[in-house]
Amino acid sequence: MKNKLKVAQFGLGPIGVECLKAVSSLSWARIVGAVDNDPNKIGKPLSELGQKGAFRTLGVTASIEGLREQPDLVFHTAASRFKIAYEQLLPLVRRGICVVSSCEELVFPSLREPRLAGNLNRICRKSGARIVGTGVNPGFVMDLLPLCLSGVSQEVRSIRVGRVVNASTRREPLQRKIGSGMQPKAFTRLLRTGQAGHAGLRESAALLAYSLTGTTGRIRETGEAVIAWHDIQTRYLRVRAGETCGLHQTAEVKIGRKLQVILDLKMYLDAEDPHDVIEVGGNPPICLLIKGGVAGDQATVAALINTAPRLLKAAPGLKLITELGLA
Amino acid sequence: MKNKLKVAQFGLGPIGVECLKAVSSLSWARIVGAVDNDPNKIGKPLSELGQKGAFRTLGVTASIEGLREQPDLVFHTAASRFKIAYEQLLPLVRRGICVVSSCEELVFPSLREPRLAGNLNRICRKSGARIVGTGVNPGFVMDLLPLCLSGVSQEVRSIRVGRVVNASTRREPLQRKIGSGMQPKAFTRLLRTGQAGHAGLRESAALLAYSLTGTTGRIRETGEAVIAWHDIQTRYLRVRAGETCGLHQTAEVKIGRKLQVILDLKMYLDAEDPHDVIEVGGNPPICLLIKGGVAGDQATVAALINTAPRLLKAAPGLKLITELGLA
Repeated sequence: MKNKLKVAQFGLGPIGVECLKAVSSLSWARIVGAVDNDPNKIGKPLSELGQKGAFRTLGVTASIEGLREQPDLVFHTAASRFKIAYEQLLPLVRRGICVVSSCEELVFPSLREPRLAGNLNRICRKSGARIVGTGVNPGFVMDLLPLCLSGVSQEVRSIRVGRVVNASTRREPLQRKIGSGMQPKAFTRLLRTGQAGHAGLRESAALLAYSLTGTTGRIRETGEAVIAWHDIQTRYLRVRAGETCGLHQTAEVKIGRKLQVILDLKMYLDAEDPHDVIEVGGNPPICLLIKGGVAGDQATVAALINTAPRLLKAAPGLKLITELGLA
Repeated sequence: MKNKLKVAQFGLGPIGVECLKAVSSLSWARIVGAVDNDPNKIGKPLSELGQKGAFRTLGVTASIEGLREQPDLVFHTAASRFKIAYEQLLPLVRRGICVVSSCEELVFPSLREPRLAGNLNRICRKSGARIVGTGVNPGFVMDLLPLCLSGVSQEVRSIRVGRVVNASTRREPLQRKIGSGMQPKAFTRLLRTGQAGHAGLRESAALLAYSLTGTTGRIRETGEAVIAWHDIQTRYLRVRAGETCGLHQTAEVKIGRKLQVILDLKMYLDAEDPHDVIEVGGNPPICLLIKGGVAGDQATVAALINTAPRLLKAAPGLKLITELGLA
């Protein structure tokens, strides 16, 4: 027990709760607590959140300072925006605590906040902490996996990733997030002004371009509502024909004549043939297909958990998932 | 020109010649020579091997000592057996030269030669050299790619990789290596005694098992001839119905109840539907398909070239490809 890694969970939304459950069955980890800023959760024993391990009597605390023991490692699932995650992570990093985060913008933090990313990296190096952002998308399907694939192709000039997610099989917050039931024009407007939509597509495009060429280039994005052709009834909501039933977003990067990256994401209700497809335009060209696609909260939790041992082997600093070894 | 990495090629078989050609177009590399032990090649200018760069007047030397300048990095394509590669690489490593090698057994060198692997690692750490074995198979399709994929699945209990290569599209040495034209019984005997067959299947199985569980377990192998159902005529040779037209090899590892790895490789003439398929049995289960498969000398050369910058970022030592970052 003594040599086990002390782990805390930061953020107790659906992914955080699942992550904590997964950590409880790891041979190398011991849970020392959980943090959330929701007044309805603070103080509650973890057993009330469905947790079953020896740690189930531990209460949810409002901050990392409230934990009885300092963790070695924190799984962070409390923000999509790097700016917000930055404030949450600062106290951890100053204490030398390592962090694996599902924060979408943390997959390539210097894209939107180069100054904050630089700060965080400096503090990590000083304290010995390591931070990385990971997940399925961003963090795998549209960045890490195409990069891995391009490793066996010469003169890669283009990478196209297409992803279709059937949102009907996903949880309620995701079905709402994709605009279900909204008027298409209104939702498209929200998408184009960045007030709605899938977070992290820019980050995937930037990470891929940066990993292959050393620069991120200019990223162009598009977004539009997917319109229901018939009435749709899911476990959580109802959409009428003509209303929004999902989103279609793309991100494109062009680095001169060197590289073109096109990411194409569709998430909508009752999507047929969900899949991930990756086309590497190089010598040889390669086309990879994952039928059904890598999707679901379990895959996201897996990405978080499996990244931890890889992060702990890296030198201190703010890391990109592409910089870590695979084992 | 001054800041470019000085690169030499060790081994001038078909892959080595292609590798040298690819290096000549890299912005970060300058070729300082090539080494081969073939008396017919020693002393010849590289232009006679089809090379066109500014280095084409350099002559092939019999050893690394014969080069006019010491390289920073060597691409090694001169051996499949680690024991033989070890002797070839020792003089390089002692000088602190980094090596990316296509040597199949070097993908997991401690499997067959733990003592030599330990030695090489020690010498590397002392001299500052880095070595890694890479390629398409072993080095990617049956080890690195399934490992990458398993990163988004929890509790991975099984990994199955199936690979079918149409040998009719490959070069002559490969068509010969797979037993084309031999009597099936005789070739199966050669396969089972390790005197013929695809090198590196054991290494892939070991690397995958080790990366996921920290141990390699016991590896069981099978091998048998694939029999031609009709007469086959390739660019290089002719096989009659009833004769061997290729091979079917498998490697299986079982680590208690933790993990089962099954690698299934078929390489034969006129194979229909060549492909790579990876099935990860975890939560979620994932199935990946590469139609056509990742095959051909260009992919192998790409693996060598693309691994170089990743190796140079690693700490000195004998590395596994799974330990390197992807960018």
